[in-house]
Amino acid sequence: MNVGFIGLGIMGSRMARNILRAGHSLSVWNRTGSKCDPLVAAGAIRAASPREAAAGRDVVISIVTDSPDVEAVLLGPAGAVEGARPGTVFADMSTIAPDAARSIGERLAARGIVFLDAPVSGGDVGAERGTLTIMVGGDAEAFEQARPVLSAMGTPTRVGPAGAGQTVKACNQILGALNLLGVCEAVALARRAGIDGPAMLGVVSRGAATSWALQNLGPRILAGDFEPGFRIRDIQKDLAIVLDAARRLSLPLAGTALVAQLFRSNEAHGEGDRGTQALFRSIERLAGPAAGP
Amino acid sequence: MNVGFIGLGIMGSRMARNILRAGHSLSVWNRTGSKCDPLVAAGAIRAASPREAAAGRDVVISIVTDSPDVEAVLLGPAGAVEGARPGTVFADMSTIAPDAARSIGERLAARGIVFLDAPVSGGDVGAERGTLTIMVGGDAEAFEQARPVLSAMGTPTRVGPAGAGQTVKACNQILGALNLLGVCEAVALARRAGIDGPAMLGVVSRGAATSWALQNLGPRILAGDFEPGFRIRDIQKDLAIVLDAARRLSLPLAGTALVAQLFRSNEAHGEGDRGTQALFRSIERLAGPAAGP
Repeated sequence: MNVGFIGLGIMGSRMARNILRAGHSLSVWNRTGSKCDPLVAAGAIRAASPREAAAGRDVVISIVTDSPDVEAVLLGPAGAVEGARPGTVFADMSTIAPDAARSIGERLAARGIVFLDAPVSGGDVGAERGTLTIMVGGDAEAFEQARPVLSAMGTPTRVGPAGAGQTVKACNQILGALNLLGVCEAVALARRAGIDGPAMLGVVSRGAATSWALQNLGPRILAGDFEPGFRIRDIQKDLAIVLDAARRLSLPLAGTALVAQLFRSNEAHGEGDRGTQALFRSIERLAGPAAGP
Repeated sequence: MNVGFIGLGIMGSRMARNILRAGHSLSVWNRTGSKCDPLVAAGAIRAASPREAAAGRDVVISIVTDSPDVEAVLLGPAGAVEGARPGTVFADMSTIAPDAARSIGERLAARGIVFLDAPVSGGDVGAERGTLTIMVGGDAEAFEQARPVLSAMGTPTRVGPAGAGQTVKACNQILGALNLLGVCEAVALARRAGIDGPAMLGVVSRGAATSWALQNLGPRILAGDFEPGFRIRDIQKDLAIVLDAARRLSLPLAGTALVAQLFRSNEAHGEGDRGTQALFRSIERLAGPAAGP
């Protein structure tokens, strides 16, 4: 298929490469143009604007930071909607608010473009390997139209109408945040009680207490490895979306709110660029020096 | 080996049977004597007191409710310590406070008995199948001595000195509680936003948001199935132990405390005998009727 791709960050550059590898024709645009170079060297067409990236394409993928960025590249001056022919499917893979996704979809529909919200989970490793989980909201027929392109990047699942992909991504981030808080509090208790961390992790990882976070982030916390995987400033952006969506729905989420506040403490201590597992540092600071039993 | 077994509740009766099946000689005692009948029919020796259950035994297992029960059956009148010969290993598989386990161990040591704290996770299904996770604190040599008996009930791992088994069990319960809170808040958001629950669970269960709780309790919550597996009143007993241990260590555990308060709301609504997944009911009551987006 003819595919346009907008946004070549850590995730986008890897995802675009998998689309090329799957044999699709690909035009690429990025705000910092030099990020296009490796993909152009691999066979992609350089576009001078989102408009140009969308011209003559069947499917246009975008993955940028937040709602205003999505609006700018799709609906702003020289935006993708200006170049696309009617009937083109736009799939935005950024994590943005469900309401924003619905609003963007409505404005695009008025211009003859079909919009899918299609956020991902799986991180840079999933992007690299083409094993992302892709949560798609929007029209079922448009989903089938975009499926060959989405499948080049991971496993797409349609979870409901417009906005549903973003809502499921929000659920995903709630789970990730609270699973991680559990890991941090368990490690904190073990450490304060003088228990061998790896022995504790080894035993509890095999039973009903287990989670991806425990198995993957637990060992990094024990090793004092707070390098990102997924950055605190990025999960905070996502949790702000979750809590705002919950506010609009009059839904209290006490646990998620607590984790967001603890991550805010990380930010206050200059740890926004650490990996999410640095949540443990906030727990440690709350704990202070051990008073001893 | 010659084994004594004290406490034939939901867990103990199944665990004792697996010891019999493994070919050990077994004497059994339970406060309500009739609970011994099926095991006696299967070849166990009926004991008239904990003292009698421990007489002439190499290993004595106890699994009762809380610290006072453990103290009563091991150290009280006609307690196991009165019947046991010096060098016998006592393994208590109840979930009690780490400090209580250490204290009981010291009092038994003064009488020539070696004590292991050996709480379990895996529930009635794990007890039935002999697949419990067994977290053992105490002397390494005593652990080797008890291992053939413990192995008949599941997978025993020594995690450290006296009390360490109970501390690791506390870590296990922290993780289970916070993983479950994540599931409840994610399902609440999906439901309030009108998203199909099974579709959401299916997608997020495959990625970095996954946990045992999500995969096993998520579907029950969606189905409105709040039958126990593990009862709210039992996890509340365990979380009280966790929070008390943390208090003694001057360790704030904001997330665990939040879940305990939400379970208290369940208890206030007469749901103590529901399964832990009924935590979702507390989240729902917090949420109230949907105001709509």
